[in-house]
Amino acid sequence: MAGPVQSIERAAAILRLLASGPRRLGLGEVAASLGLAKGTTHGILRTLQNVDFVEQDAATGKYHLGAALLHLGTSYLDVNELRSRSINWADALAARSGEAVRLGAPLEGRVLIVHHVFRPDDTLQTLDVGALLPLHASSLGKVLLAFGSVPLEPAAEAGLEAYTRHTLVDPERLTRALTEVRELGWAAEVQEMTMGEAGIAAPIRGHGGLVVGAIGASGTVERICDAKGVPQPALVSQVRHAAQAISRDLGAARW
Amino acid sequence: MAGPVQSIERAAAILRLLASGPRRLGLGEVAASLGLAKGTTHGILRTLQNVDFVEQDAATGKYHLGAALLHLGTSYLDVNELRSRSINWADALAARSGEAVRLGAPLEGRVLIVHHVFRPDDTLQTLDVGALLPLHASSLGKVLLAFGSVPLEPAAEAGLEAYTRHTLVDPERLTRALTEVRELGWAAEVQEMTMGEAGIAAPIRGHGGLVVGAIGASGTVERICDAKGVPQPALVSQVRHAAQAISRDLGAARW
Repeated sequence: MAGPVQSIERAAAILRLLASGPRRLGLGEVAASLGLAKGTTHGILRTLQNVDFVEQDAATGKYHLGAALLHLGTSYLDVNELRSRSINWADALAARSGEAVRLGAPLEGRVLIVHHVFRPDDTLQTLDVGALLPLHASSLGKVLLAFGSVPLEPAAEAGLEAYTRHTLVDPERLTRALTEVRELGWAAEVQEMTMGEAGIAAPIRGHGGLVVGAIGASGTVERICDAKGVPQPALVSQVRHAAQAISRDLGAARW
Repeated sequence: MAGPVQSIERAAAILRLLASGPRRLGLGEVAASLGLAKGTTHGILRTLQNVDFVEQDAATGKYHLGAALLHLGTSYLDVNELRSRSINWADALAARSGEAVRLGAPLEGRVLIVHHVFRPDDTLQTLDVGALLPLHASSLGKVLLAFGSVPLEPAAEAGLEAYTRHTLVDPERLTRALTEVRELGWAAEVQEMTMGEAGIAAPIRGHGGLVVGAIGASGTVERICDAKGVPQPALVSQVRHAAQAISRDLGAARW
């Protein structure tokens, strides 16, 4: 079984590589990044091209992700139970709070946005579904860390990136903040990922009571926080109420 | 090179299988559908699970698509040049026409929706990005067929599915309709996929002049067509104008 496993793992590594950084890479760049021989890399790329997972620029010969992944990715949304159970609650939370609402789940040491309801005004907004956020700098990520959905150690050991001067980059300060999140039952992010932006998130528990995701409201710091920079209590309870309702729908009996 | 190629092709076939039909399948069902031994299938599924391309239900043991595909799929959108060059034109077309606008490209004998601008009113609409439409029953697909982006034969040989009583299911009638599309330079779909719905689409040409995609407006038949059921001439020219503008942006010099 070693053979198939290895080539599929390598194919997955190539796809992940093409999803990050410059996103268009030549054969030599792909081979060098993964430490593989060019011949091996070419065989995998050609196969990925045959199944439409990878495309090659006619002009430059560089490789990039292929169209079949888009269909697989959106098909994934249809089987995601966390998302399907949350849609109505997320809509209601956005309508009631007047803020953008996002739903996150852990993926590869980050927060994958699986649902996003735009702020109910007519401003231009970009869909964040499919985006990966850092755990330590987002309220959704802090919830996942605080309630044990993802371990803190790998992120802390790799070094906590500073997105703004408010990002918690010191592991000890972050650990204390996560203890507070556990005690309060919700997390805030105040200009820790983007200056001027803030968010509030609460944990969603699944059937066995474990935290499987987080729901949060986000917007400008003036809207999310009061004059002292403290998250608005009314918004906090709206977010927590939505998280509890979704948890009940997912079968989390009592917690 | 036969080994790696084969296991990656099998992995891709499993992912495609999980993206269609019931979307949650047991090991035996996957193995039987692909004509593989259970041991081989299990090795591939386990590897796909390790890389988050597949997830397994704790309760039923059934397999479904995994979260990593969502990130790959949305990352694909960022490298899709057809989409990035079309976004502003698609927004303008939706604003001017008051209709929903979609952009399609060929994938696996169907039309993959790579961009979707909602109809600019406040009605509830579902994002179609990532969906696959049939070629013969959609205006986007007819454009791709008529201008040689995809061959008609495989679809015709597999049998043309009737979505409504207006769907062109006779290969000869479809061929005549496609000749007309080539002559007119645009395609219509009047209640051929969904009763009460209609659409108009025009070809987008790439650098070398070949048709690489299609852009279309769609909505209720009363809005898209006049009282006789003929597509509104003003809307037809708006759609064609957008297609030409995008083609120019893609480098299609003169056609």
